[in-house]
Amino acid sequence: MPDNIPTQNTGLRGVTIASTKISDVDGDAGRLIYRGYLIQDLAENATFEEVCHLLLYEKLPEEDELKDFKARLAAERDIPVELIAALKTRPKDAMPMDILQSGVAMLAHHDPDIQDTSRDALLQKALKLIAKLPTILAAWDRIRNNNEPLASNPQLDHAANFLYMLNGTVPDEEFARFFDICLVLHAEHSFNASTFAAREVASTRAHMYAAVAAAVGSLSGELHGGANVRVMEMLMEIGSLDNVETFVNQTFDAGKKLMGLGHAVYNTDDPRAHILAPMSERMGQRTGETKWYEMSKLLEVTGKKIFKQRKGRDIYANVDFYSASLYHSMGIPFDLFTTLFAISRVAGWTAHVIEEQFADAAPKPMLYRPESDYIGDYCGPDVCEFVPLTQR
Amino acid sequence: MPDNIPTQNTGLRGVTIASTKISDVDGDAGRLIYRGYLIQDLAENATFEEVCHLLLYEKLPEEDELKDFKARLAAERDIPVELIAALKTRPKDAMPMDILQSGVAMLAHHDPDIQDTSRDALLQKALKLIAKLPTILAAWDRIRNNNEPLASNPQLDHAANFLYMLNGTVPDEEFARFFDICLVLHAEHSFNASTFAAREVASTRAHMYAAVAAAVGSLSGELHGGANVRVMEMLMEIGSLDNVETFVNQTFDAGKKLMGLGHAVYNTDDPRAHILAPMSERMGQRTGETKWYEMSKLLEVTGKKIFKQRKGRDIYANVDFYSASLYHSMGIPFDLFTTLFAISRVAGWTAHVIEEQFADAAPKPMLYRPESDYIGDYCGPDVCEFVPLTQR
Repeated sequence: MPDNIPTQNTGLRGVTIASTKISDVDGDAGRLIYRGYLIQDLAENATFEEVCHLLLYEKLPEEDELKDFKARLAAERDIPVELIAALKTRPKDAMPMDILQSGVAMLAHHDPDIQDTSRDALLQKALKLIAKLPTILAAWDRIRNNNEPLASNPQLDHAANFLYMLNGTVPDEEFARFFDICLVLHAEHSFNASTFAAREVASTRAHMYAAVAAAVGSLSGELHGGANVRVMEMLMEIGSLDNVETFVNQTFDAGKKLMGLGHAVYNTDDPRAHILAPMSERMGQRTGETKWYEMSKLLEVTGKKIFKQRKGRDIYANVDFYSASLYHSMGIPFDLFTTLFAISRVAGWTAHVIEEQFADAAPKPMLYRPESDYIGDYCGPDVCEFVPLTQR
Repeated sequence: MPDNIPTQNTGLRGVTIASTKISDVDGDAGRLIYRGYLIQDLAENATFEEVCHLLLYEKLPEEDELKDFKARLAAERDIPVELIAALKTRPKDAMPMDILQSGVAMLAHHDPDIQDTSRDALLQKALKLIAKLPTILAAWDRIRNNNEPLASNPQLDHAANFLYMLNGTVPDEEFARFFDICLVLHAEHSFNASTFAAREVASTRAHMYAAVAAAVGSLSGELHGGANVRVMEMLMEIGSLDNVETFVNQTFDAGKKLMGLGHAVYNTDDPRAHILAPMSERMGQRTGETKWYEMSKLLEVTGKKIFKQRKGRDIYANVDFYSASLYHSMGIPFDLFTTLFAISRVAGWTAHVIEEQFADAAPKPMLYRPESDYIGDYCGPDVCEFVPLTQR
């Protein structure tokens, strides 16, 4: 390794480990591309179902293809009654991401084609996972609130149906489309930690459910998918517009970071943040409480200004920053925020599992088996002499 | 990157990604060390409980420490009745590794200290996972066979208690010790795929259950923990000693590999194979059927000889090779083989999660976020122009 690319304990930053056709994150240009298409174009013009088709089948669907794909997705929405029964055994205070991880793992038990490793079988598993994750989540939220889970509504599109199963009411068009755009924006982001976990597990030839369950686990960490919850907690802590500047200064004084500002990959605006911000504002207007949006906006501007004064560098809002106030205005409980990330990103995870196991590019991906540097010095440079229990 | 260390699609082979004090695998010397101690010394002299203490607390326990540690482990063996209830909802033909992945994820729902991220809390979670994984597995095997799960027996050590909970009979001393040695041998092996998955998930600050569930998923792949099952399937296919040589030639003629011979890391004898072989022979003598051991032995010698003739290189038995016939002689169903790997390796996984989150060495591990090379050429070198649905 050259000195300028350290790989030890640096989380593989800057190390190119694979080739991919799925997405491109250009952190310097602030550009995100899903299989050739700019995220801005997709968010403005395409539905989540179209994006899933793009990610899995490598093309935007024609009208007939989309109709067929939506019908297949809708047909896979419901989950087995045995899985509902299992969810009902779970403690009501379990964390939703933990419920989702176990739920994904349990889906494997019900797939009659679990041993089929063909590409077609993988595409079908991807479809099932995309269709059923929202159902698990909505069912869980109802069960923990002592309501019976609802059957899906085949008349509704993917986003609207999830909101219906969660809330028991059909959302209006604007609400459904805003949520649909959130799903589009979160669907894919190259080798982030959860996607990398999915690919790592898939590289052992484990099945797609095992890989996606690993990805859900990875996403649950507060440094990854948990960040949008922490943004909302931060907004609650700040409480009002008056407190923003003081909070920013106190945070920086303490050597801490502002949640949702800054990103491991983007060195400029995260294109997704700009799409989310006006939706957050509009949803606030709809609920009559624009304060969370306004605080976010002021926090972005103030955080940026003070960071620049102190560090001489710029800092930018990331995807978690405005999704927090947006989800809150949508009436979604805090502890479901990260799960919304999961029910969208599952599209990317499954596309990556297929690429990991069926890449047509050479060299094909191999089982991940990195090296580590042993620094155990328990008995100096030598091995330890074994001492029997009674003589220790 | 220098040309001699390719990192793209090569599964990070030869790339040192972290420092670790937990274990050292010297593939050229055929040496495996757990925190300073040679695996041979531990297999000969130490129990699985002593090895768990070594891996988690960085020292072999003194007598009082071991007594206390064993009591704490035994006290954590039983699983919540709600988890038993959940297992009873599962289809009886579910794959045991899939049951284990969901079971680990569900354990998180029952841990009242799930939010505690202190080192002590992590050590306690590790203890719970080591204690409860065998119970989940034994309970599942009984449930799928229409038997009620058994409560653990606090009089028995870890290995003997598992065999009791699985079979309903207390094993004799030799059987229990052989199984104990299997657990010692499989407990840790540096950055193999499942351990890497656990660390990857832990790097996002996800909790230990989420990380271990990911590791179970990774281990379930046939290129990783699934290999010992495939060794047994191969032995069944060969059927008798007479067929060994023909099978070896046919396998190599077809360009395939012999299962259990060869390893990603060892370029010489896997020290664990030599410890397992005589146990396989002895268990065969006990059951009166030594044929599986004898076939394994002949297959090792013949495979080695013919591989050398054809390729001019040596090939060596790995840890999966003799564990297959050994587990079979122990009366363990094929489809539990990989789960035995998991109930042992959980000791290593949990030690690695703690190191990932609490390494005292600098630099501390960072969130895994590798780079990928975008090779999507959907619209040539440019981005694709978005075409509305009706015009595609």
